[in-house]
Amino acid sequence: MTRAHATELRVRYAETDRMGIVYYANYLIWCEVGRVEYMRDLGRSYAVLETEGYGLAVSEARVRYLSPARFDDLVRVETTLGSVRSRAVTFDYVISHAESGARLATAHTALVSIDAGGRLVALPQEFRTALEGVL
Amino acid sequence: MTRAHATELRVRYAETDRMGIVYYANYLIWCEVGRVEYMRDLGRSYAVLETEGYGLAVSEARVRYLSPARFDDLVRVETTLGSVRSRAVTFDYVISHAESGARLATAHTALVSIDAGGRLVALPQEFRTALEGVL
Amino acid sequence: MTRAHATELRVRYAETDRMGIVYYANYLIWCEVGRVEYMRDLGRSYAVLETEGYGLAVSEARVRYLSPARFDDLVRVETTLGSVRSRAVTFDYVISHAESGARLATAHTALVSIDAGGRLVALPQEFRTALEGVL
Amino acid sequence: MTRAHATELRVRYAETDRMGIVYYANYLIWCEVGRVEYMRDLGRSYAVLETEGYGLAVSEARVRYLSPARFDDLVRVETTLGSVRSRAVTFDYVISHAESGARLATAHTALVSIDAGGRLVALPQEFRTALEGVL
Repeated sequence: MTRAHATELRVRYAETDRMGIVYYANYLIWCEVGRVEYMRDLGRSYAVLETEGYGLAVSEARVRYLSPARFDDLVRVETTLGSVRSRAVTFDYVISHAESGARLATAHTALVSIDAGGRLVALPQEFRTALEGVL
Repeated sequence: MTRAHATELRVRYAETDRMGIVYYANYLIWCEVGRVEYMRDLGRSYAVLETEGYGLAVSEARVRYLSPARFDDLVRVETTLGSVRSRAVTFDYVISHAESGARLATAHTALVSIDAGGRLVALPQEFRTALEGVL
Repeated sequence: MTRAHATELRVRYAETDRMGIVYYANYLIWCEVGRVEYMRDLGRSYAVLETEGYGLAVSEARVRYLSPARFDDLVRVETTLGSVRSRAVTFDYVISHAESGARLATAHTALVSIDAGGRLVALPQEFRTALEGVL
Repeated sequence: MTRAHATELRVRYAETDRMGIVYYANYLIWCEVGRVEYMRDLGRSYAVLETEGYGLAVSEARVRYLSPARFDDLVRVETTLGSVRSRAVTFDYVISHAESGARLATAHTALVSIDAGGRLVALPQEFRTALEGVL
């Protein structure tokens, strides 16, 4: 496992708006797909993490939109682990057109570790160790 | 309380697609808004119903699309209670353009009563009585 | 090309609701993915169809919800061409859990052929011929 | 017209996720609602702007999530005009719980002025003048 992981997705008609391009909020959904696949690749499924009573809640999100994605484009989401702390983790994203390589957007999210009741808690040790292993 | 209840909403840019009209799945979101407001008007908030350990899961949905809704249109959702049974309830919807009155879509949903674990259960008696009172 | 085509997708967190399952409107998005991939497989990309000045607008949609899809499930959408007429086409869908095979939902959509101005027009002949070839 | 404008909206079930709270991307949809209502209040409908051949494309978005919004909450979006330049405009947002006043999120978006073909153009003079009038 390296520090970055890439996944691809096909732009859905549902994701476009009447400007003919992908609606801006949907890039954050792609970031979610990117970090979920990142964790799966690391052997730490986010679905399992939730089953164990933990969750990662987004505390901050930023997106820079460089060039619009369009319906049916094959899009590449490259997710990079940024930092890991006791109760927080950050990811950075580069979203590009899979065929041309053109950069469509860059993004950053900060997430905090919570328990099933929504309270801040330390990341499960095994999960944190796995994340730190790639830094 | 009569059997039908109307609520209005403004079409969001997010709800359009690159055809320049509202994406077809979003009408089902408006039906949800319609039935939630219907229940609130009846004095039986759906949010409270869930707090009490019950839920209504959709078992069937149908929409006929008559004329497209567009960005910034003010849309009227008229929700009518169809039928009430021990563990099921149906609603019908007429979605129209609030200013012109033009009919945009009609819809129907069937919902089943479930508990917090997702098992079929009878509707809470008080809730069922309230619904039956308007039929 | 046979009359049915299957595609798979991974349930996104964004697609779930607070009942812990996939929100009911999102199945219609999966149907869109299914029919777009159906057309691609037939050699008639829907994106190209739109470039040529045509579109398919949904005139009717129906979904029966059998068992809930959940976050991170791998879901299979089997799309079957129903009927083809001069200005209309229908598709049927079976949505199932890719690993267990459990049936999650069935759906049906009717679509009408429109031009760039939203007026009803005959399907492009080549497109219609391709669709009829699999019936 | 003052520099800030507030609008309220009711959280939809569709906007929640299986964590039981509003999915993070949806706050950007509320920002869209906020700035559209801001422009309407200013007498410069965004829908009309598009009819005239102009558009505002988001070039940057940032959200800080402070406390989760939940289903059926009445949410207040306060939109403030940040800056106006020849081809760009920024807005800031404070999203809060309408009844308790608790702050749920803050956000910032930068938008660029484009023509119908997606090319950068100067904001229509009348629109720019109207915006500058409130600064």
